[in-house]
Formats: sequence, structure tokens, C-alpha cells
Amino acid sequence: MILPSALLTDQYELIMAQGYWRLDMAEREAVFYLGYRSNPFDGNHVIACGLAEVIKFLTHYAFSESDIAYLQSCRAPDGGTLFSPKFLQYLSELKFTCDVDAVPEGTLIQPKEPFLRIQGPLLQCQLLETALMNFVNFASLIATKASRVYLAAQGDSIMEFGLRRAQGPDGGVTASRAAFIGGCHSTSNVLAGKLYGIPIQGTQAHSWIMAFPNELEAFRAFAKTMKSNTVLLVDTYDTVCGVKNAIIVGKELRSEGHDLAGVRLDSGDVGALSKITRKMLDEAGFEKTRIVVSGDLDEYRIEELKQSGAPINAWGVGTRLITSHDQPSLNTIYKLAAIKNSDDQWDYKLKVSDHVKKTTMAGIHQVRRYFTNDHFIGDCVYDLNLGITEEFLPGSDQYEDLLVPIFRKGNLLYEQPSILSMQSRTKTQLKQFLKNAESYPVTLEPKLSDLQKKLGAKIES
Amino acid sequence: MILPSALLTDQYELIMAQGYWRLDMAEREAVFYLGYRSNPFDGNHVIACGLAEVIKFLTHYAFSESDIAYLQSCRAPDGGTLFSPKFLQYLSELKFTCDVDAVPEGTLIQPKEPFLRIQGPLLQCQLLETALMNFVNFASLIATKASRVYLAAQGDSIMEFGLRRAQGPDGGVTASRAAFIGGCHSTSNVLAGKLYGIPIQGTQAHSWIMAFPNELEAFRAFAKTMKSNTVLLVDTYDTVCGVKNAIIVGKELRSEGHDLAGVRLDSGDVGALSKITRKMLDEAGFEKTRIVVSGDLDEYRIEELKQSGAPINAWGVGTRLITSHDQPSLNTIYKLAAIKNSDDQWDYKLKVSDHVKKTTMAGIHQVRRYFTNDHFIGDCVYDLNLGITEEFLPGSDQYEDLLVPIFRKGNLLYEQPSILSMQSRTKTQLKQFLKNAESYPVTLEPKLSDLQKKLGAKIES
Repeated sequence: MILPSALLTDQYELIMAQGYWRLDMAEREAVFYLGYRSNPFDGNHVIACGLAEVIKFLTHYAFSESDIAYLQSCRAPDGGTLFSPKFLQYLSELKFTCDVDAVPEGTLIQPKEPFLRIQGPLLQCQLLETALMNFVNFASLIATKASRVYLAAQGDSIMEFGLRRAQGPDGGVTASRAAFIGGCHSTSNVLAGKLYGIPIQGTQAHSWIMAFPNELEAFRAFAKTMKSNTVLLVDTYDTVCGVKNAIIVGKELRSEGHDLAGVRLDSGDVGALSKITRKMLDEAGFEKTRIVVSGDLDEYRIEELKQSGAPINAWGVGTRLITSHDQPSLNTIYKLAAIKNSDDQWDYKLKVSDHVKKTTMAGIHQVRRYFTNDHFIGDCVYDLNLGITEEFLPGSDQYEDLLVPIFRKGNLLYEQPSILSMQSRTKTQLKQFLKNAESYPVTLEPKLSDLQKKLGAKIES
Repeated sequence: MILPSALLTDQYELIMAQGYWRLDMAEREAVFYLGYRSNPFDGNHVIACGLAEVIKFLTHYAFSESDIAYLQSCRAPDGGTLFSPKFLQYLSELKFTCDVDAVPEGTLIQPKEPFLRIQGPLLQCQLLETALMNFVNFASLIATKASRVYLAAQGDSIMEFGLRRAQGPDGGVTASRAAFIGGCHSTSNVLAGKLYGIPIQGTQAHSWIMAFPNELEAFRAFAKTMKSNTVLLVDTYDTVCGVKNAIIVGKELRSEGHDLAGVRLDSGDVGALSKITRKMLDEAGFEKTRIVVSGDLDEYRIEELKQSGAPINAWGVGTRLITSHDQPSLNTIYKLAAIKNSDDQWDYKLKVSDHVKKTTMAGIHQVRRYFTNDHFIGDCVYDLNLGITEEFLPGSDQYEDLLVPIFRKGNLLYEQPSILSMQSRTKTQLKQFLKNAESYPVTLEPKLSDLQKKLGAKIES
């Protein structure tokens, strides 16, 4: 949604870029990888998402005249200019020329697995850090959250309607797309519907009910306009009275050859109320009228309601999905893993830290996933130069390398699948993963692991 | 940042709009208010933000040809078209003609106080619900969070650098603006710098350090390019060694007539490390070199570090501010409060609910704030038709009505202040508020309160 701007970056990326340029290191070839540290929500997986935004950004990557003029105006704390005219000249002519490999959207991934790798001039790789992280971090978080909601709902319909509480307009559009890829069936967000072809859905607001002299009149008026698609919000004044009024209107609809599609419960003890509502509807002959529930729902609450046997047919999930309420950020990282030295040889790089968890991985990585027709067996991260010895993990008879070519020398090779097939990928991968979810094995290929240890020891000493 | 699109709305707003249009209620005059239910972060206030986006959106409000074409293509669950051609014709000619009053950005507000009021044709007020909530919800949340970080830092410099973990590109830009209005001194987000004139700042990344054969060379190279603006990231391998290397480079800088501006600690026990670092720097004669700290900071952590006497001069705050980590959404509401009946008389409206907290307010509201030169005394919500009796609250000698005219009949009246004066407004209001923060009184004007009770009782019966 955002107009791609090369200024979508942190100030220090530009400072470092200028430094590399001054030191004649701008064109030195480097490899960075993008991954994440740990699974969110105490869960077992992440669903990769956001690649479309990466592609759009890199395809249009350029510093505009006004970007350059702005950078020209920037001052350092000591009052001097922040960027030299010659460097800005260089930026104004900069073209994106890197190789990018990434996992397709809707791929289930694991911590420590690179899900995007970029290789090219050090300056470009550095400048792109912030934007690349921004594009995949939030989208992957929301796709992951949605996949958990999808699993909890056990096949019931999930309507995402978080736009009003989303992180700004673009946050909402990004999130609606990611939520669909993660498994939601529809969105309330009309703009996301237009942009991405996601089915849009909705019912009615309390303000509709309040705009009429009473609830019954409000229901009648809505049924008149929606006919067979009427879903009535029954909790504005009192839910049980609301269901009674909905049944009256349902009967009127029937007399005109239509049916009452559903009622929506949006407050109160929706578990108990759904049982009462179901009974009232059934006794009145509205067995097919669906019960839609909304209000602070997430995977935990849906699971709870499912377990209590609440007869709910569809779930409207908003705020807690769209803001990823219980963990609103994914701890993605973007790290230098290799750089060519002045002899044009690869120097493999890692960062150690007081926190073992924050140690990074050296190498030019690929991720191999071993599986059978039925399910995933395990993943192995290997280095493209060191290679991989084992053909199959025990129990597997197939494998797939997860990172696929997206850009070569700045040219887009990758053809993006439809959003529907991204969603299918998520659903299929979840199914293949679930059997081993609790202790899914991800290993470092032995030669890469050895190298990693050697480099670590070298830094320690 | 987003291209204003009238489709930035929930599907049900359009469904209801069509319903009102079919029932000949589209032009009936209505009043809606936008407020929020409770203070976030167990705090005592919210800083209003996001009005600029509201103004941009409403100024350009229109359904484009492609919007209409998309709506034409939408199907109802029963397979019929969702919108009638005549209604779409109506939408394509729709112009924004409402009155809008709102509190200026940077205003400190309280739960139950309307901070935006819209009056105009029912159809327009309904259609705008989602977008208006979206614009102010996230921005106000982040401005509020930033104001808490600002208070915790007690005047220290706060650099916001959350872009990489922000909720999408636009989420990042929106958040950087809101964080500045809430009290941050600068942002790392270059695009936000360009768009809003916020000062940009930054240091360097671990990848810079890793791109060189060793840390000392990396520091030297950076100092060469940054001179007196050099801030060195000392934790890539080992913080204490890093500070030693920084001191070596600091001495080299001095021999060239510059000084070492700062060091940044980004991991480990930054409280203890900052004390060690300060001692090492002081002993080496670098008393003026500043210590910058970053890494999972928020108002709680800053307060803790402040209390422990950690000698930290500047704070880099990212993820936890930009995603509002401990409460990633504000519970804003947008409610119908009055509507003209067929006799052109105002019907005041409220919604009751099993949850008392969810009961809404009837009326055409204004908020009066009573204060002295020094501090706020209390707020009173009153109805414009019923008026307000008391001139001053005890202890006050001035008052201000918080909602100011923004649009009249769709025309923009309001001149937006600079972003810097929005930030000043926040800081001044925080200062005036703090004395009574724990139990700040917000009352309903007695005549409005009576009416509210009468309407509630009528619904109950």
C-alpha cells in the first residue's frame, strides 16, 4: 500500500552505507540472512509471509530526487551535513543488483532457519535491512497468529474484522492479507478485498439497531435490505430478547420465501448465550440459522468455547488477531553471514553474545526439509559451499529446499502464486507438520556446525 | 502515507449504508462520537493523536471509479450482487458534508470523553466509522506509550527506533510520528523524518562491526567517517573489550581534534555494564562521552534502570514502544449518540449492555476542562443543547472546551499546528495533569447525567 520509498530505512543504515562507500567497501560482496529467534505464542511454528511487499519494494528500489534533497538537508549533531554530496550522487544512481532467495509465503518455518537470504554489494544489503525486516516481521506474525486461530476453529468459518483496531490503515491492509494467508476465510476490510481478492464479509453494527425506534423495527429494516443474507446482531439491549425479535423477523422472512441466515452474539457470556440461542432457534424451527460470535476472540478463547461444547458456527476475530495481542512482535533478525575479503575469498561471519540465544549463524544457507507424502520428518540448515552429505533423513523419502530464487542480479525471477494457493500452502503445511509439532527436529548440517564452532572459538580466544 | 481510499472501511458499513439509503434514511442527521473505554497500561491518561490522518482522509473522501467497479463485483453469500447499481451510483457521487469537532493532537484525554464528534447525514457518519477509529486508535495508543517513556526518562534523550519491528511500513511511519508527538526526541525512521520533519538519529549495527577483520578496525573505520559524531556499538563480541577498543579510538579521535560522542550498550545486564563503562570512560578522561542504551526498553525498564542509578544518558526505544508491547490496542468506540426523527427533532440514543462498562453516552457532547495556570482541576462532559450551569469548578479560574471545530459542512476550517507544537502540547499537558493524576475527576454535567439515567431506565423497562 505504501508508495515504495528507499527512505523506508533507519538512519544508521545510510550512515553505514556512506561509511562503506568512503572506505571503498560498498561493492564488496556480502551475504545476509533474515530469520527469527524463537517461536511466538509459546508455539511450534511461524508461517512466513510478507514476500509480496519485499518484491514490490525491491522492484521499485530507487532514491527519488526529493529523497536526495531531504538527505542533503540532514544535519549531524555537530551541525555539519550528515551526507556528502558525492555520496548522495552515488545514491541517486544506485540500482538494486542483489540475489535474493526466500521461502514462499505460506511456508511453515522454524527458529534459526533463514527464511530470506540476500547476496550482493555490502552497501545494498545493509541499506535494505530495515525495510526487509519490516515487511516480513509483522506479516509473518499475523499469518502465524491466524494459523493458530484456524487450527483452534477446527474448520469453522473465521471472519477477520480487525481493521478499526489495526496499526494504522496500512497495518490493517497488511494484516488482513496475512490473516487470510494464515487461514481466515474472509475479511471485513473492503480495501483488502479490492487489493488482494480476499472475500469480504460482515453483519451489522449496534448503531444500525440504535438508529431505529426499537430493535424489532431495526431487524425488520435490515431483513428488508438483506433478504436471505440477513445476520442479526442480537445483543444491543438484551441478548435473549434480541433472539426473540430475530425469530419474529425470521418467520416474516420465511413467509416471503427467504430464511434467516444467522444471529451474532457480541457480548456477555457467549458460551452460555450460544446454547440458549441455539435452543430458541431450534425450537422455533430455525435449525439452519447460524450462530456467529465475536468480541475479544483469539485461539485460546475459541478453543475454550469449543471444548465447552458451545454451538457456535462462525467466529469473528478482530483486535486480538490483528494486533497479535499476546505477543505483538516477532523477533526477526537480519545478520551478516559472509563477506568476501580483499582476496575475493569468502570470510564467514558470526556474532557471539553474552546471550547464547543471540549468537548468529555464519554461512551461505539453504534449508532442506525432509518429508513423506504424509508429514514432515525434519529440517536441516546447510551451507551452499560446504554442501550436504545425507540424502534423506531416516523415515523420509522426499525433500525440498525451502529457499527459492526470487531475484538474480536485481532481476525478478519469481512468479508469485495466487493468494488462495498461499493459504492452501499454509493449511497443507500445518497438516504435514502437526504430527511432529512438539519436538520437530531442526539440525545444522555437521560440516556447517563444525565451522560454526571453530569460528565461535576463534572469537572467544 | 496510504493513498486515501473510501474503501478503507468494513464491509458492514457499506451494507448498512445501502440499507439506510433504501429506507430513505441516508440523509437523516445524526451525531456519533469517538472515545475510548479505559486508560491503557493501567495508566491515568491518553494522548490524543491521529487527527492529521483523519483530515487527510476526509479532505479527499470519494469513491473512485475502480472502487465502484470493485463493489459492483462483490457477491452476497446467496450469489446475488451485494450492492445495487443505483446505490453504487449514489456512492460514486457522494461528497463529504459533515461537521467534525475534535481535540487537537497532543491533548491529554480521559475515558468516556468524546475526543471526536461528527454530525451529518447518517449514511456518511456510518461509512466513516472504521477509518476514523483506525486513524486515531493506533496513533493515540503510541503517543500515550511514548508519553510514559518520556516521563520515565526524566528529561533524558529518547531515540525511537522501532521501524523494523513496526506493524508494516505505514504502521512504522504512523508510529514514529505518534512517538514524537508523545515526547520522543528523534526517530531512526528516515521516511518519517522526511514526511514530518522529525529529527533522525542513529548509531551503527552489529553488521558494521562484523564486516571488518576485528572490532578495533571497525571502530576506527567508523570514526574516520563520523568524526565528532561517533557513537560506537560495543557489545558485538564482549562489552568490556568493546569499551576498551572504543577508548583507544576515542584517543585517536582526540589527537585529530575530535571527541568520542558516545558508546552504545545493546545486550547483557545494561545496568551493571553502564556503571563499568562510565568508570572506564571517566578514568580514561572521557567524562563527556555519553552512554546510550537499547534493547527491549520501555517505561518500566527505564524507570528500573533510573532507580538503580545506572549512568545512562540516552535511551534507544524500539519494539516495545512501536508495537505498544504490553497492550497493543486501545479500546476506542464510535457510537451513535443522537439522531433526528421524522419530525426533525433530536432523539438521544444510548446502548446498554450486560457489561455496565459498555453502556454508551447519549447527547451532542463537548468536554470542558477547568484549570489554573499551574494544573488541571477536572473535566466535565456536557451536552450542547442542555448546556452547562457551573462556570468554574472549585479551585479553577480558567476553562477550555476541548473539542474544536475541524470541518463544517465538509469544509476544513482547522489549521494544523506544527508537529513540534503538538509535542509541546503533550509535555505541557502532562505537567499540568500530574498533580491530580491519581484521581482526576471527570464528571457528567448534571442535566446530561439525568437524561442519561432516564433513557437507560426507559430501555430497561
